[in-house]
Amino acid sequence: MPDSLKDLRRDLASAYRIVANEGILDAFGHISVRNPNNPQRYFLSRSRAPALVQTADILEYDLDSNPIVPPVTRPYSERVIHGEIFKARPDVNAVCHHHAPSIMPFAISGMPLVPVFHLGAAMGRHAPFWDSRDEFGDTNLLVVKPEEGASLARALGKHAIVLMRRHGATVVGGELRELVFRTIYSAKNAEHQLQAHMLGHVSPLTDGEADMASQLNLAPGPLARAYEYWVRRLAEREGRGKSDPMLRAVEAAARQPVPAKAAAKRSKVGVKKKPKGRNR
Amino acid sequence: MPDSLKDLRRDLASAYRIVANEGILDAFGHISVRNPNNPQRYFLSRSRAPALVQTADILEYDLDSNPIVPPVTRPYSERVIHGEIFKARPDVNAVCHHHAPSIMPFAISGMPLVPVFHLGAAMGRHAPFWDSRDEFGDTNLLVVKPEEGASLARALGKHAIVLMRRHGATVVGGELRELVFRTIYSAKNAEHQLQAHMLGHVSPLTDGEADMASQLNLAPGPLARAYEYWVRRLAEREGRGKSDPMLRAVEAAARQPVPAKAAAKRSKVGVKKKPKGRNR
Amino acid sequence: MPDSLKDLRRDLASAYRIVANEGILDAFGHISVRNPNNPQRYFLSRSRAPALVQTADILEYDLDSNPIVPPVTRPYSERVIHGEIFKARPDVNAVCHHHAPSIMPFAISGMPLVPVFHLGAAMGRHAPFWDSRDEFGDTNLLVVKPEEGASLARALGKHAIVLMRRHGATVVGGELRELVFRTIYSAKNAEHQLQAHMLGHVSPLTDGEADMASQLNLAPGPLARAYEYWVRRLAEREGRGKSDPMLRAVEAAARQPVPAKAAAKRSKVGVKKKPKGRNR
Amino acid sequence: MPDSLKDLRRDLASAYRIVANEGILDAFGHISVRNPNNPQRYFLSRSRAPALVQTADILEYDLDSNPIVPPVTRPYSERVIHGEIFKARPDVNAVCHHHAPSIMPFAISGMPLVPVFHLGAAMGRHAPFWDSRDEFGDTNLLVVKPEEGASLARALGKHAIVLMRRHGATVVGGELRELVFRTIYSAKNAEHQLQAHMLGHVSPLTDGEADMASQLNLAPGPLARAYEYWVRRLAEREGRGKSDPMLRAVEAAARQPVPAKAAAKRSKVGVKKKPKGRNR
Repeated sequence: MPDSLKDLRRDLASAYRIVANEGILDAFGHISVRNPNNPQRYFLSRSRAPALVQTADILEYDLDSNPIVPPVTRPYSERVIHGEIFKARPDVNAVCHHHAPSIMPFAISGMPLVPVFHLGAAMGRHAPFWDSRDEFGDTNLLVVKPEEGASLARALGKHAIVLMRRHGATVVGGELRELVFRTIYSAKNAEHQLQAHMLGHVSPLTDGEADMASQLNLAPGPLARAYEYWVRRLAEREGRGKSDPMLRAVEAAARQPVPAKAAAKRSKVGVKKKPKGRNR
Repeated sequence: MPDSLKDLRRDLASAYRIVANEGILDAFGHISVRNPNNPQRYFLSRSRAPALVQTADILEYDLDSNPIVPPVTRPYSERVIHGEIFKARPDVNAVCHHHAPSIMPFAISGMPLVPVFHLGAAMGRHAPFWDSRDEFGDTNLLVVKPEEGASLARALGKHAIVLMRRHGATVVGGELRELVFRTIYSAKNAEHQLQAHMLGHVSPLTDGEADMASQLNLAPGPLARAYEYWVRRLAEREGRGKSDPMLRAVEAAARQPVPAKAAAKRSKVGVKKKPKGRNR
Repeated sequence: MPDSLKDLRRDLASAYRIVANEGILDAFGHISVRNPNNPQRYFLSRSRAPALVQTADILEYDLDSNPIVPPVTRPYSERVIHGEIFKARPDVNAVCHHHAPSIMPFAISGMPLVPVFHLGAAMGRHAPFWDSRDEFGDTNLLVVKPEEGASLARALGKHAIVLMRRHGATVVGGELRELVFRTIYSAKNAEHQLQAHMLGHVSPLTDGEADMASQLNLAPGPLARAYEYWVRRLAEREGRGKSDPMLRAVEAAARQPVPAKAAAKRSKVGVKKKPKGRNR
Repeated sequence: MPDSLKDLRRDLASAYRIVANEGILDAFGHISVRNPNNPQRYFLSRSRAPALVQTADILEYDLDSNPIVPPVTRPYSERVIHGEIFKARPDVNAVCHHHAPSIMPFAISGMPLVPVFHLGAAMGRHAPFWDSRDEFGDTNLLVVKPEEGASLARALGKHAIVLMRRHGATVVGGELRELVFRTIYSAKNAEHQLQAHMLGHVSPLTDGEADMASQLNLAPGPLARAYEYWVRRLAEREGRGKSDPMLRAVEAAARQPVPAKAAAKRSKVGVKKKPKGRNR
């Protein structure tokens, strides 16, 4: 958890750029985090391409998605996705809406996305579908009205990801790094699943496997290892050196052995708790 | 709209390099804009790979595709594509002809390209096909005679994109940035549609959804957000710094809130006007 | 045609790196040119990954693929591919053997490669198959004996490309730049054709279209345009500036208008002459 | 063979970064080498993303996968994969566990991976499958218990690669460079095979072809050529210049002619010896 709201804004801006750098986001899509000091508020960038988002771009909204400070810049029109999910899901503290290339064939074809490998289990057992047409008929497909956001949140239910027909996906997490991991590996899962279908057969993880693998992947160790990797790749792309403070922080976090207790204490979104943890 | 013809030539040269940088154009393909001061003329690069086009490469032609100034460099042989479309479509002010990798499987197989996600709706409801063989029999497939260009323009009709069998596609726009957006997102639409076919089922946008989503995507806000992203990516590739004037201009444009009236005034190509605009 | 053998060696080394930079060659594959001063000899790199080949790596061989000067470095074991084709095809002055990712599915499945778009027509009407097993039974699949090279040359016949089952492809050209163009665009043709098959239908160019499009693509104008692009991309990757002499040479060549006569005089490999040329 | 254990650790760290740079490894996966001075011990990185592994990250383990020196950093939880294979296979001196994108569709669908081109023959005749569910029921899919590692080693048997259902693959080699070559080219084999299936037909190498092609590919010449290429690509990515000592070493190795005897002496893993070697 960041030391201050300033750190949180900085980490949120980095998350935008990390997820863009990994090919999930292009000019569109957005990520939010709930304000840990006031759960009735959340942070979201001004309307900007994710690859470009900086700390100064982060704005604060209430859960009705009204800005706390009147903005002098353009806001995202789809911010109700974030506000309505934060309302409906007190366990969710971070949300990503995207149109990842590997997810789109599922959003277009209606083929169910299922966990097909251990890292993909971060998506949970199942990804429900939401079709704006069911409740709202013909629209421009953007989720801009509160009732549209609330409908999407209902379709998400207790899951960790919801597919949006002819539009994309929305992913949720208990905290920002868990969200980033789930967003990236559910997109990889989609890529692998599509190609497996081309070979004729897909046998997904059992519910038990999905629960245990998800619990494992989102534990502090794997999360820290993956985050060090993504931050380094971003730093390389942005020409920031090895003395970059954020890079040094994630390196230190990834190096440190994880006490067994710390791992057990964490709660995760959309993941059944398995008391029988496995030694990592 | 650029302040001067010099700015327009510079923006056109940038558009070549942007569309190339996004993987749509390789050594071939070309983009034109109509001269806003004289609608009977248009601008097009000399025959050069799009990734390399600079302001000084831009030549001026009349609508019969004759050069205004006798050229001392090699012209594109397919310039009649541009001239004949500008003749037939007074609402069109920018044209891109390309052979994008994601579009080619549709141009080769004859599978109809349909809008399958909200951003892809920039292509309009439908993409007609043109086959040079129908009217002209065996040719080298290039569109070099005025009657070939006129035939292609007829096939395009009132649409925003026309597929060319065993050749590629031609896209049109009301202005340059709209054209760039449509070119890039119709190519992404093709990529997603092909992969959705591999999962067995494609359900396109309804006509109503396509009209509304297209109207939305090509509004000033999304266009400015996407353009800031593409210009930044190009500037990074070309090693131009953050003080680059064009980059600063698109940053400022993307930051500024859009007055509702300005959004409503704009007209777009191949898009049904929807008086019932949605709040963005 | 280069001014001297030194220029030819330099251009050959650049061709290795260009074709590698465009994703056709990885650690393996090789390119040769015939010695214009002595058609009984040809040039080929020492055994080295194509992306790394420099002028100093180029060795000279006779048509039996014996080195003219006893080599102090490791030679390619498959050099008979080049020697035997140069023996059998006096019209061929450049040869590329490769395992391009887009070609391999055809070499493995036996699906015929056919020209599916105008630029792909550079491959000619048809690509014959050669299977080492037919004549030689089980081998390690490399073409290392003179009789294996001669068998491959027979399968190539008068064509411009031959597919090698479970191995790759060999492409030939009347000169080096034609070879590079054909190699790159036949690989792109394969990529588009494979994806068109996934949409269910492939309608190739007619023989007439293939002949005319091939003639057109390999004319001086398109060749110069493409070469400027590939050399620039290579120069960027290798960190060479705009004052690089080779880059300046290809820029000048691409800028210059082509006299109609010069275009007509050229002869090309595997391409039917069409007296009825089209204005470019 | 490296001159010292320090060189071996450095080469192992480079192998991590090479295999990551070629797109096989992302934040996860790991590579080990057996200690040549003490075959009851092996080297493996601390738990770190492969692209980031440095010499100082390499730890030493006994074959029960207990650390020789109590670690102050986080270990990989799946190290028993390495220890149990080193126990079961005295001929194996290097192991790579990965989740390469091209391998995953096979691991998910159960489609057998077969050698489809000469370089892919480095995988051997056949890749067995291991499904953790068969013996252990629902797990988190990681191989963390000694009995799980031993079960995987049994499934591997005398082969060179084993596919792990819903998880990935594990590859083995007689030495580190052979392992890297096999890992990279078995992944390329999978990529080509998948696309060949999309064209409808796959005819693999015969057992005889697979044996001979594998023997050939892993000979000193091709191995040195490929390694120079991969080290150069890594050095370019990491901004290390041409004077980098490791780069100069691999350049020298690739340049030197191979005495026929040296080639014949080498033994390789999972490859039938063919006394009838072919001249390279």
